[in-house]
Amino acid sequence: MGTPVVGIIGGGQLARMMHAAGIGLGIRVALLAEGPDVSAAQVVHDVTVGDYTDPDTVTAFAERCDVVTFDHEHVPTALLHTLQERGVLVRPGPEALVHAQDKVVMRTRLAAHGLPVPAFAVADSPDELVAFADRTGWPVIAKTSRGGYDGKGVWKVDDPSGATEPFANLAPGVQILAEEYIPFVRELSALVVRSPSGQAVAYPVSESVQTDGICVETTTPAPGLAEEQATACQRLALEIARDLEVSGILAVELMERADGNVVVNELAMRPHNTGHWSIDGSRTSQFENHLRAVLDLPLGDPGAAAPWSVMHNVLGGDRTDLVDGLRHVLARDPGLKVQLYGKDVVPGRKVGHVTAVGTDLDEVRRRARHGAAELRSGS
Amino acid sequence: MGTPVVGIIGGGQLARMMHAAGIGLGIRVALLAEGPDVSAAQVVHDVTVGDYTDPDTVTAFAERCDVVTFDHEHVPTALLHTLQERGVLVRPGPEALVHAQDKVVMRTRLAAHGLPVPAFAVADSPDELVAFADRTGWPVIAKTSRGGYDGKGVWKVDDPSGATEPFANLAPGVQILAEEYIPFVRELSALVVRSPSGQAVAYPVSESVQTDGICVETTTPAPGLAEEQATACQRLALEIARDLEVSGILAVELMERADGNVVVNELAMRPHNTGHWSIDGSRTSQFENHLRAVLDLPLGDPGAAAPWSVMHNVLGGDRTDLVDGLRHVLARDPGLKVQLYGKDVVPGRKVGHVTAVGTDLDEVRRRARHGAAELRSGS
Repeated sequence: MGTPVVGIIGGGQLARMMHAAGIGLGIRVALLAEGPDVSAAQVVHDVTVGDYTDPDTVTAFAERCDVVTFDHEHVPTALLHTLQERGVLVRPGPEALVHAQDKVVMRTRLAAHGLPVPAFAVADSPDELVAFADRTGWPVIAKTSRGGYDGKGVWKVDDPSGATEPFANLAPGVQILAEEYIPFVRELSALVVRSPSGQAVAYPVSESVQTDGICVETTTPAPGLAEEQATACQRLALEIARDLEVSGILAVELMERADGNVVVNELAMRPHNTGHWSIDGSRTSQFENHLRAVLDLPLGDPGAAAPWSVMHNVLGGDRTDLVDGLRHVLARDPGLKVQLYGKDVVPGRKVGHVTAVGTDLDEVRRRARHGAAELRSGS
Repeated sequence: MGTPVVGIIGGGQLARMMHAAGIGLGIRVALLAEGPDVSAAQVVHDVTVGDYTDPDTVTAFAERCDVVTFDHEHVPTALLHTLQERGVLVRPGPEALVHAQDKVVMRTRLAAHGLPVPAFAVADSPDELVAFADRTGWPVIAKTSRGGYDGKGVWKVDDPSGATEPFANLAPGVQILAEEYIPFVRELSALVVRSPSGQAVAYPVSESVQTDGICVETTTPAPGLAEEQATACQRLALEIARDLEVSGILAVELMERADGNVVVNELAMRPHNTGHWSIDGSRTSQFENHLRAVLDLPLGDPGAAAPWSVMHNVLGGDRTDLVDGLRHVLARDPGLKVQLYGKDVVPGRKVGHVTAVGTDLDEVRRRARHGAAELRSGS
């Protein structure tokens, strides 16, 4: 194949960390970035600045790549079909990716296969949302079918008075999905990687803590998760990846009920925040395995390299100079691993993450939380 | 400090792996490369192509960096002094670096401090080389004072008939260093990292196997090295780093005598081939710690993450498509870690390395050797 060029559409931190992982594989990354100085554009040699929704821009970019993959899931499906028709390898392909782009399509597909999903329906109006809730019980969850992220585009609707808000400012082509409210005890993430030739690996299942819809911390493996439960989660994710013919990462966000059963919440088909721990805590990071998958290279060992890994996100806070913050964090904890994304600090924005690994979960968690808090606030 | 820019002079694989390690630290790398498509230039965003011996080129490059460091040791010392006079932070500085550039300066300095070095003298002619050997005993080692690498510029001289060759084609300003031949049983490497503020960490001591002067394999920790011997090697390297006021990595290549005592062979002040194992086998790689040091950030834990790490170099052989070679290597060993340097395959050239880690040394070594052989020859 010679030196392969992997085109990444989107220049965020996921592309940045993919590039870091790809250097050792001897590949070249070409980046289609939103701007000249976004996170990944700072560290990739070959950067094209352009609009990922513009067919001419994307086509010209893609045609000089051996394979195209993604930092995000927002490239229009129709455009990806066009690329495929022109002979471009798109991984994951649009037939798979649409299930991470459109929650109605995803829910419909998984339900048709008998997989555990909440009761759901498309609601075309506030009245339909109320009718759905009257059938399944209040509260209900309303979601935009497309475009939501980090808690945006999701509403918990407690009574009919809240049924109007989800329909305000709805973008064209976006629907409201009404879902049964699942009284979950915690969120889990089952992350698998599948190659076009069908090889697949499953990472240990993570527990994920979200605040306001933003992932703030993961613990791997999920504490207290029985081996048979963990295996069931991994099997579920592998089954979805096979069924949807995913190439690359599939992250399956799960809600765990009090009885230990799980329900699928969301799907993602790119490196996922709940897999960031794998850079430092696994034998092969999610970023490296995603690149191996899109190049159809054999996948690496996803096993944990330490008994416990805790990843804590650094959200923008009082401290604006994060590299200076490293002075304090790294002096206190020479074993802490840090990833900074090269982003301007904006309150609440994901600007980095820290990972601690070790044998004592309480200590590992304390170290990760301390490091993230120090980088955030400097207090 | 804001987002610091680390300028790296030289675009080889060491700069390439430094960049990969720096992405997580949130730093920006600027590269002064020998050509537009050399190893590191393929993966760094900010690349200047220019001659590292040209004062105008180097000065213009350095003045937009927060600190300048190196992929190799060949930048003229006088030029580095000029940079310092203009206020550029050069790490390691020329006062230290000259000891890695000039073997006569290095030997003289270490001997003056009573550190273990072979008997040596500058030989200004073949006759002086013969006279030195007659005093210390045949054979002797002759070395060019500057510019040697990977076995080039080193001769084992067995008798007077071999005394002329080292003096042929001697570059201006280069001397011949005559050294006592040390009957060593193996080569060891003590790698330490020191920051400008004086913090220092020592990696576990590695055993290094050289063929024709080229490092082909390292085993870490060095098998059978008693703890007090290992500590003595680390102390020696730390003492040299402190004495020379090194900023960044100092690799001390050692010859181990049959009685377990060691003699200093060479010094290097850049990431070193004997430290490549640390990417996958240590809690903080030599590349990350070098960058931390040149930015005067706290250093990371250099401890081993597994009982044994074996690094085997991939030297250019029959196979020209190394990424395609990954198909075979990675399928057989999902736990093997590979670094490819993005270089054209030339027979004998270092084009990558593989690292295996684990608990059974024989198995770890077998895995590393198999992976490297497969990448090299495909047979």
